[in-house]
Amino acid sequence: MSEVIILSQEEVKSCLPMSEAIKAVAEAYKAFAKGRVELAPVVHLSVEKYRGEVDVKSGYVEDFGLIGTKIASGYYDNPKMGLPSGVAVIILMDLKTSLPLAIMDGTYLTAVRTGAAGAVAASVLARKDSRRVGVIGAGTQARMQVLALSEIFPLKQVKVYNIHSASSEKYAAEMRERLGIEVEPVNTPKEAVSEVDIIVTATPSNKALVMDEWIPNGVHINAIGADAPGKQELDPKIMKRAKIVVDSFKQCRVIGEIQHALAQGLIKEEDVHAEIGDILIGKNVGRETETEITLFDSTGMAVQDIAAANVVYQLAKKKNMGSRIKLL
Amino acid sequence: MSEVIILSQEEVKSCLPMSEAIKAVAEAYKAFAKGRVELAPVVHLSVEKYRGEVDVKSGYVEDFGLIGTKIASGYYDNPKMGLPSGVAVIILMDLKTSLPLAIMDGTYLTAVRTGAAGAVAASVLARKDSRRVGVIGAGTQARMQVLALSEIFPLKQVKVYNIHSASSEKYAAEMRERLGIEVEPVNTPKEAVSEVDIIVTATPSNKALVMDEWIPNGVHINAIGADAPGKQELDPKIMKRAKIVVDSFKQCRVIGEIQHALAQGLIKEEDVHAEIGDILIGKNVGRETETEITLFDSTGMAVQDIAAANVVYQLAKKKNMGSRIKLL
Repeated sequence: MSEVIILSQEEVKSCLPMSEAIKAVAEAYKAFAKGRVELAPVVHLSVEKYRGEVDVKSGYVEDFGLIGTKIASGYYDNPKMGLPSGVAVIILMDLKTSLPLAIMDGTYLTAVRTGAAGAVAASVLARKDSRRVGVIGAGTQARMQVLALSEIFPLKQVKVYNIHSASSEKYAAEMRERLGIEVEPVNTPKEAVSEVDIIVTATPSNKALVMDEWIPNGVHINAIGADAPGKQELDPKIMKRAKIVVDSFKQCRVIGEIQHALAQGLIKEEDVHAEIGDILIGKNVGRETETEITLFDSTGMAVQDIAAANVVYQLAKKKNMGSRIKLL
Repeated sequence: MSEVIILSQEEVKSCLPMSEAIKAVAEAYKAFAKGRVELAPVVHLSVEKYRGEVDVKSGYVEDFGLIGTKIASGYYDNPKMGLPSGVAVIILMDLKTSLPLAIMDGTYLTAVRTGAAGAVAASVLARKDSRRVGVIGAGTQARMQVLALSEIFPLKQVKVYNIHSASSEKYAAEMRERLGIEVEPVNTPKEAVSEVDIIVTATPSNKALVMDEWIPNGVHINAIGADAPGKQELDPKIMKRAKIVVDSFKQCRVIGEIQHALAQGLIKEEDVHAEIGDILIGKNVGRETETEITLFDSTGMAVQDIAAANVVYQLAKKKNMGSRIKLL
């Protein structure tokens, strides 16, 4: 029968430049908006005994001719054992026949496609002259978001706040090197979001870290961290002033940043401006004025994983990379 | 990081003797009955354009220390292209850390574990002196069921009915060879189930194939085919006379053979005698008299897949089989 390509994290890395991931995620959002995507409900397994959780996301995209399944975990005690705090595996199957085509590490891919999502949103929601980014959080995703934005905007300055200052200092040193621009660790969230064009929140927070009164007009906010019930990074009052764009309304109202403003009655469902895909296909508009506040609520969708995995798969085939195994 | 073992169908075959699969499935049912298993809802994707469907089953078993996910498809036009009508891939992860341990073909494994399920059920539900089996259906599962039963009972005779007589003749020739006993193709379902001790139904039927008036006292029935809404193989009146045992009550009432008798009000939920695991752990009884009719309704559970995959994984490790790949 057919061969499956197995791709390690290193191989995935070499087949998924951020610029390609951004294009792929934009295509993914468009396919979703056009109804050419079928996504199954996300399945969640809680492994309380080991402080872990596993999510299984699956779906298919007609435009790519692929069925994709991602099994992703978060295990909070893993780092104590020197292991990653989460892993992911992605399986791609041929939509026409269901034969397995590729199995790859999805850990790095998930980080990249989530970064790419922020850049896609900013490309239609942030001011065109955006040069300064304020980041809350100094982990992998705080890095990916800024690396992705730097593909879209000629960034001049990044400010970063993290609850542990050692982490923001490490972040600053590393990102200064990678981007060749000023990256400044700051001592308060307020400083991080002051006098910037784009704000990124990328933490596991369960409470508001960024207050409404700190947000001037004209800013774009990428709200990345909230992707589960209870998670929160923003003062819900911000939602009342912002043009709100979501990746998937169905998901965001339950697990996204907007869950809190909706629950508190600060906004109604009809106050959500659009899904990002509708803007990308021209069914709705992005930023319209220099002064409006825009907000993108990202929760992550299997269609992004399938799109990014497709980039990896196509390039790996072309470059003859990965291990080829006859599975059945 | 860690290595993942990739196992092809051939390798899975050589690591999963039926006798071991039977033991593993019994352990799986017991673990389920003891509440040491967490199963996520089964996710279903329908690919209407290509007459296909994909199910994703996931869960974990504390007793085995494993998280398992199975992606399984049914593509009804595949055989026309010389491809299998369904494929499956299984991913095992370490319950303690979520690190992936093994990725294997699940197509053959699914067939074996389903066969094993029938044998486990018959071991506590069929009469001890059972020697004759009547089979409706002549596909892979009709083979697996009888091969599994032959591990538990010294079978003397098999009768097989299939809607296409060429298939039942092929079945008979092949199974005669494999089992070294009389295997007779018959022309009607009634002949197949007459004067036998165990009846097996293993077809994709949507209507009753076996009538109530054909079933004498003392018989055990393994109802294997029905595993989706609308699927049916038995006259629902049989349920009124039978001691009904299910793999998972939650599943069977919706997708199992009992769905029809329940919907028609022929039986009530409380008429279902037990889940098979409860009998295996001694919480409930199996067959009690020589004359009662027993029925096992099998829909298939992720815990069976995890148990069977664990057998394969452990043996593959021991024998140093499979391809080893550093995934992350």
